[in-house]
Amino acid sequence: MKTSSDCFPCFLKQTVIALKQYGSNEEIDRKVIREVLDIMKDADMSKPPAYTTTFIHRAIRKGIAADPFEKIKRQYNDIALSLYPRLRELVKNSPDPVKTASRLAIAGNIIDFGIFTSIDIEKSVEQSLRTEIAVDDYDSFMDDLMHADEILYLLDNAGEIVFDRLLIEELRLIGKQVKAVVKGSAVLNDVTREDALQTGLASVCEIIDNGSDAIGTILPWTSHAFRREFEDAQLTISKGQGNFETLFGTDKRIYFLFQSKCDVVSKELELPACSMLFKKS
Amino acid sequence: MKTSSDCFPCFLKQTVIALKQYGSNEEIDRKVIREVLDIMKDADMSKPPAYTTTFIHRAIRKGIAADPFEKIKRQYNDIALSLYPRLRELVKNSPDPVKTASRLAIAGNIIDFGIFTSIDIEKSVEQSLRTEIAVDDYDSFMDDLMHADEILYLLDNAGEIVFDRLLIEELRLIGKQVKAVVKGSAVLNDVTREDALQTGLASVCEIIDNGSDAIGTILPWTSHAFRREFEDAQLTISKGQGNFETLFGTDKRIYFLFQSKCDVVSKELELPACSMLFKKS
Repeated sequence: MKTSSDCFPCFLKQTVIALKQYGSNEEIDRKVIREVLDIMKDADMSKPPAYTTTFIHRAIRKGIAADPFEKIKRQYNDIALSLYPRLRELVKNSPDPVKTASRLAIAGNIIDFGIFTSIDIEKSVEQSLRTEIAVDDYDSFMDDLMHADEILYLLDNAGEIVFDRLLIEELRLIGKQVKAVVKGSAVLNDVTREDALQTGLASVCEIIDNGSDAIGTILPWTSHAFRREFEDAQLTISKGQGNFETLFGTDKRIYFLFQSKCDVVSKELELPACSMLFKKS
Repeated sequence: MKTSSDCFPCFLKQTVIALKQYGSNEEIDRKVIREVLDIMKDADMSKPPAYTTTFIHRAIRKGIAADPFEKIKRQYNDIALSLYPRLRELVKNSPDPVKTASRLAIAGNIIDFGIFTSIDIEKSVEQSLRTEIAVDDYDSFMDDLMHADEILYLLDNAGEIVFDRLLIEELRLIGKQVKAVVKGSAVLNDVTREDALQTGLASVCEIIDNGSDAIGTILPWTSHAFRREFEDAQLTISKGQGNFETLFGTDKRIYFLFQSKCDVVSKELELPACSMLFKKS
Protein backbone atom coordinates (compact mmCIF):
# COMPACT_ATOMS: atom_id res chain seq x y z
CA MET A 1 0.00 0.00 0.00
CA LYS A 2 1.33 3.41 -1.00
CA THR A 3 0.92 6.75 0.77
CA SER A 4 -1.78 8.95 -0.75
CA SER A 5 -2.04 12.74 -0.62
CA ASP A 6 -5.19 12.08 1.46
CA CYS A 7 -2.89 10.77 4.19
CA PHE A 8 -1.34 14.21 4.75
CA PRO A 9 -4.24 15.89 6.59
CA CYS A 10 -4.52 12.71 8.66
CA PHE A 11 -0.82 12.77 9.61
CA LEU A 12 -1.39 16.19 11.17
CA LYS A 13 -4.68 15.18 12.75
CA GLN A 14 -2.87 12.35 14.53
CA THR A 15 -0.20 14.81 15.66
CA VAL A 16 -2.75 17.23 17.09
CA ILE A 17 -4.60 14.37 18.87
CA ALA A 18 -1.33 13.13 20.41
CA LEU A 19 -0.35 16.62 21.58
CA LYS A 20 -3.78 17.24 23.10
CA GLN A 21 -3.70 13.85 24.74
CA TYR A 22 -0.53 14.85 26.54
CA GLY A 23 -1.57 18.44 27.16
CA SER A 24 1.80 20.14 26.81
CA ASN A 25 2.13 23.88 26.16
CA GLU A 26 1.63 25.91 23.00
CA GLU A 27 5.32 26.55 22.41
CA ILE A 28 6.28 22.88 22.54
CA ASP A 29 3.23 21.91 20.44
CA ARG A 30 4.25 24.42 17.80
CA LYS A 31 7.82 23.08 17.75
CA VAL A 32 6.59 19.51 17.36
CA ILE A 33 4.19 20.49 14.57
CA ARG A 34 7.05 22.17 12.68
CA GLU A 35 9.15 19.01 12.96
CA VAL A 36 6.21 16.93 11.78
CA LEU A 37 5.81 19.25 8.76
CA ASP A 38 9.47 18.57 7.89
CA ILE A 39 8.93 14.83 8.20
CA MET A 40 5.91 15.09 5.92
CA LYS A 41 7.95 16.99 3.33
CA ASP A 42 10.30 14.02 3.16
CA ALA A 43 7.54 11.39 3.20
CA ASP A 44 8.27 8.42 0.93
CA MET A 45 5.00 8.12 -1.00
CA SER A 46 6.01 4.71 -2.37
CA LYS A 47 5.82 3.23 1.15
CA PRO A 48 2.73 2.59 3.32
CA PRO A 49 1.66 5.61 5.43
CA ALA A 50 2.76 3.65 8.53
CA TYR A 51 6.38 4.60 7.70
CA THR A 52 5.73 8.33 7.93
CA THR A 53 3.43 7.87 10.93
CA THR A 54 6.22 6.01 12.73
CA PHE A 55 8.64 8.93 12.16
CA ILE A 56 5.94 11.36 13.30
CA HIS A 57 5.23 9.53 16.55
CA ARG A 58 8.97 9.33 17.28
CA ALA A 59 9.21 13.12 16.81
CA ILE A 60 6.20 13.66 19.09
CA ARG A 61 7.63 11.48 21.88
CA LYS A 62 11.02 13.18 21.54
CA GLY A 63 9.47 16.67 21.41
CA ILE A 64 7.41 16.28 24.57
CA ALA A 65 9.95 13.93 26.19
CA ALA A 66 7.17 11.49 27.10
CA ASP A 67 4.76 8.88 25.75
CA PRO A 68 1.51 10.86 25.25
CA PHE A 69 -0.63 7.71 25.29
CA GLU A 70 0.75 5.99 28.38
CA LYS A 71 -2.09 7.03 30.70
CA ILE A 72 -4.93 6.48 28.29
CA LYS A 73 -3.67 3.00 27.40
CA ARG A 74 -4.01 2.00 31.09
CA GLN A 75 -7.53 3.46 31.11
CA TYR A 76 -8.61 1.62 27.96
CA ASN A 77 -7.29 -1.66 29.33
CA ASP A 78 -9.18 -1.12 32.59
CA ILE A 79 -12.41 -0.29 30.79
CA ALA A 80 -12.10 -3.32 28.51
CA LEU A 81 -11.25 -5.55 31.50
CA SER A 82 -14.46 -4.43 33.21
CA LEU A 83 -16.36 -5.83 30.20
CA TYR A 84 -14.35 -9.04 30.12
CA PRO A 85 -16.54 -11.26 32.41
CA ARG A 86 -19.67 -10.54 30.35
CA LEU A 87 -17.88 -11.08 27.03
CA ARG A 88 -16.34 -14.31 28.36
CA GLU A 89 -19.88 -15.60 29.10
CA LEU A 90 -21.07 -14.49 25.68
CA VAL A 91 -18.30 -16.51 24.00
CA LYS A 92 -18.77 -19.54 26.28
CA ASN A 93 -22.52 -19.74 25.65
CA SER A 94 -22.36 -19.23 21.89
CA PRO A 95 -22.78 -22.13 19.43
CA ASP A 96 -19.34 -21.49 17.87
CA PRO A 97 -17.08 -19.94 20.51
CA VAL A 98 -14.10 -19.44 18.15
CA LYS A 99 -16.33 -17.62 15.68
CA THR A 100 -17.88 -15.41 18.36
CA ALA A 101 -14.49 -14.64 19.87
CA SER A 102 -12.98 -13.81 16.46
CA ARG A 103 -15.89 -11.50 15.75
CA LEU A 104 -15.36 -9.81 19.10
CA ALA A 105 -11.65 -9.45 18.27
CA ILE A 106 -12.60 -7.58 15.09
CA ALA A 107 -15.23 -5.56 16.99
CA GLY A 108 -12.60 -4.62 19.61
CA ASN A 109 -10.56 -2.98 16.85
CA ILE A 110 -13.11 -0.14 16.93
CA ILE A 111 -11.66 1.07 20.25
CA ASP A 112 -10.03 4.36 19.54
CA PHE A 113 -9.53 7.76 21.08
CA GLY A 114 -12.69 9.64 21.80
CA ILE A 115 -14.25 6.58 23.44
CA PHE A 116 -13.85 7.14 27.13
CA THR A 117 -16.34 5.07 29.10
CA SER A 118 -17.25 1.41 29.34
CA ILE A 119 -20.73 2.35 28.09
CA ASP A 120 -19.20 3.95 24.97
CA ILE A 121 -16.99 0.92 24.37
CA GLU A 122 -19.92 -1.45 24.95
CA LYS A 123 -22.05 0.57 22.52
CA SER A 124 -19.35 0.64 19.83
CA VAL A 125 -18.63 -3.04 20.24
CA GLU A 126 -22.32 -3.99 20.19
CA GLN A 127 -22.77 -1.96 17.01
CA SER A 128 -19.74 -3.68 15.48
CA LEU A 129 -21.19 -7.09 16.38
CA ARG A 130 -24.38 -6.24 14.49
CA THR A 131 -22.41 -5.10 11.42
CA GLU A 132 -21.86 -7.65 8.67
CA ILE A 133 -18.27 -8.74 8.08
CA ALA A 134 -17.55 -7.26 4.64
CA VAL A 135 -14.83 -9.80 3.78
CA ASP A 136 -15.29 -13.03 5.73
CA ASP A 137 -12.69 -15.78 5.28
CA TYR A 138 -13.60 -17.48 8.56
CA ASP A 139 -14.28 -20.89 6.97
CA SER A 140 -10.91 -20.87 5.25
CA PHE A 141 -9.33 -19.79 8.56
CA MET A 142 -10.89 -22.80 10.33
CA ASP A 143 -9.47 -25.13 7.66
CA ASP A 144 -6.00 -23.66 8.10
CA LEU A 145 -6.37 -23.70 11.88
CA MET A 146 -6.95 -27.48 11.82
CA HIS A 147 -3.51 -27.95 10.25
CA ALA A 148 -1.61 -25.59 12.54
CA ASP A 149 -0.29 -26.36 16.02
CA GLU A 150 0.99 -22.90 16.74
CA ILE A 151 -0.37 -19.45 15.91
CA LEU A 152 1.51 -16.17 15.78
CA TYR A 153 -0.87 -13.44 16.92
CA LEU A 154 0.09 -9.83 16.08
CA LEU A 155 -1.64 -7.62 18.63
CA ASP A 156 -2.73 -4.05 17.98
CA ASN A 157 -4.12 -1.55 20.53
CA ALA A 158 -4.65 -1.16 24.24
CA GLY A 159 -8.21 -2.03 25.27
CA GLU A 160 -8.57 -4.16 22.15
CA ILE A 161 -6.04 -6.58 23.67
CA VAL A 162 -8.74 -7.78 26.10
CA PHE A 163 -10.86 -8.81 23.10
CA ASP A 164 -7.82 -10.58 21.66
CA ARG A 165 -7.46 -12.42 24.96
CA LEU A 166 -10.95 -13.89 24.45
CA LEU A 167 -9.95 -15.32 21.06
CA ILE A 168 -6.55 -16.52 22.26
CA GLU A 169 -8.22 -18.30 25.19
CA GLU A 170 -10.49 -20.13 22.73
CA LEU A 171 -7.50 -21.10 20.59
CA ARG A 172 -5.75 -22.43 23.71
CA LEU A 173 -8.91 -24.39 24.66
CA ILE A 174 -8.81 -26.26 21.34
CA GLY A 175 -5.18 -27.11 21.99
CA LYS A 176 -3.29 -24.50 20.00
CA GLN A 177 -0.04 -22.88 21.08
CA VAL A 178 -0.15 -19.10 20.69
CA LYS A 179 2.66 -16.56 20.63
CA ALA A 180 1.21 -13.07 21.03
CA VAL A 181 3.36 -10.25 19.66
CA VAL A 182 3.63 -6.84 21.29
CA LYS A 183 5.63 -3.80 20.16
CA GLY A 184 9.25 -3.49 21.25
CA SER A 185 8.53 -0.08 22.73
CA ALA A 186 5.79 2.54 22.95
CA VAL A 187 4.14 3.89 19.81
CA LEU A 188 0.67 5.43 19.63
CA ASN A 189 -1.83 3.26 21.55
CA ASP A 190 -0.18 0.00 20.47
CA VAL A 191 0.36 -2.64 23.13
CA THR A 192 3.72 -3.38 24.70
CA ARG A 193 4.65 -6.08 27.24
CA GLU A 194 3.17 -3.89 29.99
CA ASP A 195 -0.31 -4.13 28.45
CA ALA A 196 -0.08 -7.90 28.15
CA LEU A 197 0.71 -8.03 31.87
CA GLN A 198 -2.02 -5.54 32.87
CA THR A 199 -4.74 -7.39 30.95
CA GLY A 200 -3.77 -10.90 32.06
CA LEU A 201 -2.88 -12.02 28.53
CA ALA A 202 0.62 -12.87 29.74
CA SER A 203 -0.83 -15.72 31.82
CA VAL A 204 -2.80 -17.11 28.85
CA CYS A 205 -0.01 -17.43 26.28
CA GLU A 206 3.60 -16.65 25.53
CA ILE A 207 4.30 -12.96 24.85
CA ILE A 208 7.11 -11.97 22.51
CA ASP A 209 8.01 -8.48 21.28
CA ASN A 210 8.88 -7.46 17.75
CA GLY A 211 11.77 -5.22 18.78
CA SER A 212 10.30 -2.26 16.94
CA ASP A 213 8.47 1.00 17.64
CA ALA A 214 6.87 1.11 14.19
CA ILE A 215 3.17 1.50 13.43
CA GLY A 216 2.08 -1.88 12.06
CA THR A 217 4.85 -4.38 11.37
CA ILE A 218 7.63 -2.94 9.21
CA LEU A 219 9.64 -6.17 8.88
CA PRO A 220 13.10 -4.68 8.17
CA TRP A 221 12.80 -2.64 11.36
CA THR A 222 11.85 -5.59 13.59
CA SER A 223 14.33 -7.70 15.56
CA HIS A 224 16.11 -10.70 14.06
CA ALA A 225 14.40 -12.93 16.64
CA PHE A 226 10.94 -11.69 15.64
CA ARG A 227 11.63 -12.04 11.93
CA ARG A 228 12.57 -15.69 12.52
CA GLU A 229 9.29 -16.26 14.38
CA PHE A 230 7.39 -14.56 11.56
CA GLU A 231 9.14 -16.63 8.88
CA ASP A 232 8.59 -19.91 10.77
CA ALA A 233 4.93 -19.25 11.66
CA GLN A 234 2.47 -21.83 10.30
CA LEU A 235 -0.44 -19.44 10.69
CA THR A 236 -0.55 -15.75 11.62
CA ILE A 237 -3.44 -13.65 12.91
CA SER A 238 -2.80 -9.97 12.30
CA LYS A 239 -4.86 -7.34 14.11
CA GLY A 240 -5.49 -3.76 13.00
CA GLN A 241 -5.11 -1.54 9.99
CA GLY A 242 -1.43 -0.74 10.58
CA ASN A 243 -0.46 -4.41 10.33
CA PHE A 244 -2.62 -4.79 7.22
CA GLU A 245 -0.98 -1.76 5.58
CA THR A 246 2.51 -3.06 6.22
CA LEU A 247 2.07 -6.85 5.83
CA PHE A 248 -0.54 -7.34 3.11
CA GLY A 249 1.14 -8.81 0.08
CA THR A 250 3.75 -10.70 2.16
CA ASP A 251 4.20 -14.28 1.05
CA LYS A 252 2.82 -15.80 4.29
CA ARG A 253 -0.48 -17.36 5.39
CA ILE A 254 -1.94 -14.44 7.38
CA TYR A 255 -5.50 -13.65 8.41
CA PHE A 256 -6.09 -9.92 8.84
CA LEU A 257 -8.77 -9.10 11.43
CA PHE A 258 -9.51 -5.37 11.45
CA GLN A 259 -11.81 -2.51 10.68
CA SER A 260 -10.88 -0.21 7.81
CA LYS A 261 -10.85 3.07 9.70
CA CYS A 262 -9.67 5.44 6.99
CA ASP A 263 -10.84 6.37 3.50
CA VAL A 264 -7.49 5.58 1.89
CA VAL A 265 -7.41 1.96 3.11
CA SER A 266 -11.15 1.49 2.45
CA LYS A 267 -10.69 2.76 -1.12
CA GLU A 268 -7.74 0.39 -1.63
CA LEU A 269 -10.01 -2.45 -0.48
CA GLU A 270 -12.92 -1.14 -2.58
CA LEU A 271 -15.10 -1.18 0.53
CA PRO A 272 -17.10 1.48 2.38
CA ALA A 273 -15.24 3.16 5.26
CA CYS A 274 -15.50 1.39 8.66
CA SER A 275 -15.90 -2.05 7.08
CA MET A 276 -15.09 -5.10 9.22
CA LEU A 277 -12.73 -7.64 7.72
CA PHE A 278 -11.60 -11.22 8.37
CA LYS A 279 -9.35 -11.27 5.33
CA LYS A 280 -7.00 -13.99 4.14
CA SER A 281 -3.67 -12.87 2.67
CA MET B 1 -9.48 35.13 16.10
CA LYS B 2 -6.16 33.33 16.35
CA THR B 3 -4.96 30.26 14.47
CA SER B 4 -5.22 27.04 16.48
CA SER B 5 -3.17 23.87 16.08
CA ASP B 6 -6.50 22.29 15.04
CA CYS B 7 -6.33 24.44 11.90
CA PHE B 8 -3.27 22.58 10.60
CA PRO B 9 -4.95 19.33 9.50
CA CYS B 10 -7.66 21.48 7.91
CA PHE B 11 -5.10 23.56 5.95
CA LEU B 12 -3.94 20.36 4.30
CA LYS B 13 -7.45 19.03 3.82
CA GLN B 14 -8.29 22.18 1.87
CA THR B 15 -5.13 21.74 -0.19
CA VAL B 16 -5.98 18.13 -1.07
CA ILE B 17 -9.58 19.13 -1.97
CA ALA B 18 -8.32 21.92 -4.26
CA LEU B 19 -5.80 19.63 -5.96
CA LYS B 20 -8.42 16.92 -6.50
CA GLN B 21 -10.88 19.50 -7.78
CA TYR B 22 -8.41 20.44 -10.48
CA GLY B 23 -7.19 16.91 -11.12
CA SER B 24 -3.56 17.61 -11.92
CA ASN B 25 -0.88 14.94 -11.75
CA GLU B 26 0.85 13.32 -8.80
CA GLU B 27 4.16 15.10 -9.34
CA ILE B 28 2.63 18.57 -9.38
CA ASP B 29 0.36 17.71 -6.43
CA ARG B 30 3.37 16.59 -4.44
CA LYS B 31 5.26 19.80 -5.27
CA VAL B 32 2.28 21.94 -4.20
CA ILE B 33 1.87 19.98 -0.96
CA ARG B 34 5.55 20.56 -0.13
CA GLU B 35 5.13 24.29 -0.67
CA VAL B 36 2.02 24.29 1.49
CA LEU B 37 3.96 22.50 4.26
CA ASP B 38 6.55 25.32 4.12
CA ILE B 39 3.80 27.95 4.34
CA MET B 40 2.34 26.13 7.34
CA LYS B 41 5.74 26.10 9.05
CA ASP B 42 5.77 29.90 8.85
CA ALA B 43 2.10 30.31 9.84
CA ASP B 44 1.50 33.33 12.08
CA MET B 45 -0.58 31.80 14.88
CA SER B 46 -1.50 35.25 16.23
CA LYS B 47 -3.53 35.95 13.07
CA PRO B 48 -6.82 34.38 11.91
CA PRO B 49 -6.39 31.14 9.93
CA ALA B 50 -7.62 33.05 6.83
CA TYR B 51 -4.11 34.56 6.51
CA THR B 52 -2.41 31.19 6.12
CA THR B 53 -5.25 29.87 3.95
CA THR B 54 -4.80 32.84 1.62
CA PHE B 55 -1.08 32.05 1.20
CA ILE B 56 -1.95 28.39 0.65
CA HIS B 57 -4.49 29.09 -2.08
CA ARG B 58 -2.03 31.43 -3.81
CA ALA B 59 0.56 28.62 -3.79
CA ILE B 60 -1.99 26.15 -5.18
CA ARG B 61 -3.03 28.47 -8.04
CA LYS B 62 0.62 29.20 -8.83
CA GLY B 63 1.61 25.51 -8.60
CA ILE B 64 -1.05 24.27 -11.00
CA ALA B 65 -1.03 27.52 -13.04
CA ALA B 66 -4.84 27.67 -12.90
CA ASP B 67 -7.82 28.41 -10.66
CA PRO B 68 -8.91 24.95 -9.45
CA PHE B 69 -12.43 26.15 -8.58
CA GLU B 70 -13.31 28.02 -11.77
CA LYS B 71 -15.45 25.26 -13.28
CA ILE B 72 -17.23 24.22 -10.11
CA LYS B 73 -18.13 27.81 -9.29
CA ARG B 74 -20.03 28.05 -12.61
CA GLN B 75 -21.78 24.76 -11.77
CA TYR B 76 -22.82 25.87 -8.30
CA ASN B 77 -24.18 29.13 -9.65
CA ASP B 78 -26.18 27.25 -12.29
CA ILE B 79 -27.59 24.81 -9.74
CA ALA B 80 -28.56 27.63 -7.36
CA LEU B 81 -30.09 29.61 -10.23
CA SER B 82 -32.29 26.61 -11.08
CA LEU B 83 -33.71 26.87 -7.53
CA TYR B 84 -34.12 30.65 -7.72
CA PRO B 85 -37.74 30.86 -9.06
CA ARG B 86 -39.06 28.59 -6.28
CA LEU B 87 -37.12 30.43 -3.58
CA ARG B 88 -38.29 33.79 -4.96
CA GLU B 89 -41.92 32.62 -4.55
CA LEU B 90 -41.17 31.34 -1.05
CA VAL B 91 -39.85 34.78 -0.04
CA LYS B 92 -42.67 36.68 -1.78
CA ASN B 93 -45.43 34.64 -0.11
CA SER B 94 -43.92 34.72 3.37
CA PRO B 95 -45.29 37.00 6.13
CA ASP B 96 -41.88 38.71 6.59
CA PRO B 97 -40.00 38.58 3.26
CA VAL B 98 -36.82 40.23 4.62
CA LYS B 99 -36.69 37.69 7.45
CA THR B 100 -37.28 34.75 5.12
CA ALA B 101 -34.71 36.03 2.64
CA SER B 102 -32.12 36.62 5.38
CA ARG B 103 -32.71 33.11 6.68
CA LEU B 104 -32.23 31.75 3.17
CA ALA B 105 -29.03 33.79 2.87
CA ILE B 106 -27.71 32.04 6.00
CA ALA B 107 -28.99 28.67 4.75
CA GLY B 108 -27.19 29.24 1.42
CA ASN B 109 -23.91 29.47 3.30
CA ILE B 110 -24.12 25.67 3.69
CA ILE B 111 -23.24 25.26 0.00
CA ASP B 112 -19.84 23.70 -0.09
CA PHE B 113 -17.86 21.19 -2.05
CA GLY B 114 -19.27 17.73 -2.01
CA ILE B 115 -22.75 19.04 -2.83
CA PHE B 116 -23.13 18.46 -6.51
CA THR B 117 -26.78 18.38 -7.50
CA SER B 118 -29.74 20.70 -7.12
CA ILE B 119 -31.42 17.97 -5.05
CA ASP B 120 -28.45 17.95 -2.64
CA ILE B 121 -28.47 21.74 -2.40
CA GLU B 122 -32.23 21.79 -1.90
CA LYS B 123 -31.93 19.15 0.82
CA SER B 124 -29.12 20.99 2.62
CA VAL B 125 -30.94 24.30 2.38
CA GLU B 126 -34.24 22.83 3.58
CA GLN B 127 -32.46 21.27 6.53
CA SER B 128 -30.80 24.61 7.30
CA LEU B 129 -34.19 26.33 7.18
CA ARG B 130 -35.52 23.94 9.80
CA THR B 131 -32.51 24.53 12.08
CA GLU B 132 -32.86 27.17 14.79
CA ILE B 133 -30.67 30.27 14.41
CA ALA B 134 -28.26 29.87 17.35
CA VAL B 135 -27.52 33.60 17.64
CA ASP B 136 -30.35 35.69 16.22
CA ASP B 137 -29.93 39.47 16.16
CA TYR B 138 -32.56 39.94 13.45
CA ASP B 139 -34.67 42.38 15.48
CA SER B 140 -31.67 44.57 16.15
CA PHE B 141 -30.78 44.34 12.45
CA MET B 142 -34.25 45.60 11.49
CA ASP B 143 -33.84 48.57 13.86
CA ASP B 144 -30.48 49.42 12.31
CA LEU B 145 -31.85 48.88 8.83
CA MET B 146 -34.54 51.52 9.40
CA HIS B 147 -31.80 54.13 9.96
CA ALA B 148 -29.62 53.16 7.02
CA ASP B 149 -30.07 54.21 3.39
CA GLU B 150 -27.24 52.18 2.02
CA ILE B 151 -25.95 48.72 2.87
CA LEU B 152 -22.53 47.28 2.15
CA TYR B 153 -22.99 43.56 1.48
CA LEU B 154 -19.87 41.37 1.66
CA LEU B 155 -20.54 38.31 -0.49
CA ASP B 156 -19.01 34.91 0.10
CA ASN B 157 -19.27 31.84 -2.16
CA ALA B 158 -20.47 30.83 -5.60
CA GLY B 159 -23.95 29.27 -5.49
CA GLU B 160 -24.61 31.05 -2.19
CA ILE B 161 -24.62 34.35 -4.15
CA VAL B 162 -28.04 33.43 -5.59
CA PHE B 163 -29.40 33.26 -2.03
CA ASP B 164 -27.80 36.64 -1.35
CA ARG B 165 -29.56 37.99 -4.42
CA LEU B 166 -32.90 37.11 -2.80
CA LEU B 167 -32.06 39.16 0.29
CA ILE B 168 -30.59 42.04 -1.71
CA GLU B 169 -33.72 42.16 -3.88
CA GLU B 170 -35.84 42.48 -0.71
CA LEU B 171 -33.59 45.26 0.58
CA ARG B 172 -33.95 47.05 -2.76
CA LEU B 173 -37.77 46.62 -2.59
CA ILE B 174 -37.89 48.48 0.71
CA GLY B 175 -35.87 51.30 -0.85
CA LYS B 176 -32.31 50.56 0.28
CA GLN B 177 -29.22 51.10 -1.83
CA VAL B 178 -26.91 48.09 -1.79
CA LYS B 179 -23.28 47.78 -2.76
CA ALA B 180 -22.36 44.12 -3.07
CA VAL B 181 -18.68 43.31 -2.63
CA VAL B 182 -16.88 40.60 -4.58
CA LYS B 183 -13.24 39.52 -4.36
CA GLY B 184 -10.66 41.35 -6.47
CA SER B 185 -9.55 38.07 -8.01
CA ALA B 186 -10.08 34.32 -7.70
CA VAL B 187 -9.62 32.59 -4.35
CA LEU B 188 -11.24 29.29 -3.32
CA ASN B 189 -14.95 29.29 -4.24
CA ASP B 190 -15.37 32.98 -3.38
CA VAL B 191 -17.32 35.13 -5.82
CA THR B 192 -15.69 37.59 -8.20
CA ARG B 193 -17.35 40.02 -10.64
CA GLU B 194 -17.91 37.11 -13.05
CA ASP B 195 -20.22 35.36 -10.57
CA ALA B 196 -22.23 38.53 -9.98
CA LEU B 197 -22.78 38.73 -13.75
CA GLN B 198 -23.59 35.02 -14.16
CA THR B 199 -26.19 35.05 -11.38
CA GLY B 200 -27.89 38.30 -12.38
CA LEU B 201 -26.89 40.06 -9.17
CA ALA B 202 -25.14 42.72 -11.24
CA SER B 203 -28.54 43.89 -12.53
CA VAL B 204 -30.01 44.10 -9.01
CA CYS B 205 -27.39 46.30 -7.31
CA GLU B 206 -24.00 47.91 -7.70
CA ILE B 207 -21.08 45.49 -7.60
CA ILE B 208 -17.71 46.62 -6.25
CA ASP B 209 -14.60 44.53 -5.66
CA ASN B 210 -12.34 44.61 -2.64
CA GLY B 211 -9.12 44.48 -4.65
CA SER B 212 -7.92 41.43 -2.76
CA ASP B 213 -7.53 37.68 -3.23
CA ALA B 214 -7.69 36.97 0.51
CA ILE B 215 -10.00 34.51 2.24
CA GLY B 216 -12.46 36.66 4.17
CA THR B 217 -11.70 40.38 4.29
CA ILE B 218 -8.15 41.14 5.42
CA LEU B 219 -8.49 44.92 5.47
CA PRO B 220 -4.82 45.90 5.04
CA TRP B 221 -4.71 43.79 1.88
CA THR B 222 -7.82 45.33 0.30
CA SER B 223 -7.80 48.29 -2.09
CA HIS B 224 -7.84 51.89 -0.88
CA ALA B 225 -11.21 52.37 -2.63
CA PHE B 226 -12.75 49.41 -0.82
CA ARG B 227 -11.40 50.48 2.56
CA ARG B 228 -13.07 53.87 2.10
CA GLU B 229 -16.39 52.14 1.29
CA PHE B 230 -15.97 49.95 4.36
CA GLU B 231 -15.17 52.91 6.61
CA ASP B 232 -18.08 54.99 5.29
CA ALA B 233 -20.67 52.19 5.41
CA GLN B 234 -23.68 52.86 7.66
CA LEU B 235 -24.52 49.19 7.87
CA THR B 236 -22.65 46.11 6.66
CA ILE B 237 -23.90 42.58 6.06
CA SER B 238 -21.04 40.11 6.10
CA LYS B 239 -21.50 36.62 4.73
CA GLY B 240 -19.50 33.51 5.61
CA GLN B 241 -17.04 32.28 8.16
CA GLY B 242 -13.97 33.81 6.48
CA ASN B 243 -15.38 37.32 6.80
CA PHE B 244 -16.35 36.62 10.41
CA GLU B 245 -12.84 35.37 11.23
CA THR B 246 -11.20 38.44 9.74
CA LEU B 247 -13.70 41.21 10.61
CA PHE B 248 -15.18 40.30 13.98
CA GLY B 249 -13.97 42.77 16.55
CA THR B 250 -13.73 45.62 13.99
CA ASP B 251 -15.23 48.86 15.27
CA LYS B 252 -18.08 48.90 12.72
CA ARG B 253 -21.78 48.04 12.72
CA ILE B 254 -21.68 44.66 10.98
CA TYR B 255 -24.17 41.79 10.93
CA PHE B 256 -22.49 38.44 10.33
CA LEU B 257 -24.72 35.93 8.55
CA PHE B 258 -23.04 32.53 8.38
CA GLN B 259 -22.81 28.95 9.49
CA SER B 260 -19.94 27.96 11.77
CA LYS B 261 -18.48 25.21 9.64
CA CYS B 262 -15.41 24.31 11.67
CA ASP B 263 -14.73 23.22 15.24
CA VAL B 264 -12.25 26.03 15.89
CA VAL B 265 -14.71 28.83 15.07
CA SER B 266 -17.60 27.01 16.81
CA LYS B 267 -15.48 26.63 19.94
CA GLU B 268 -14.56 30.34 19.83
CA LEU B 269 -18.30 31.11 19.65
CA GLU B 270 -19.09 28.53 22.36
CA LEU B 271 -21.62 26.94 20.01
CA PRO B 272 -22.03 23.45 18.56
CA ALA B 273 -20.44 22.94 15.12
CA CYS B 274 -22.65 23.84 12.13
CA SER B 275 -24.58 26.49 14.06
CA MET B 276 -26.42 29.18 12.07
CA LEU B 277 -25.76 32.76 13.06
CA PHE B 278 -27.25 36.21 12.48
CA LYS B 279 -24.74 37.90 14.75
CA LYS B 280 -24.28 41.59 15.46
CA SER B 281 -20.71 42.85 15.82
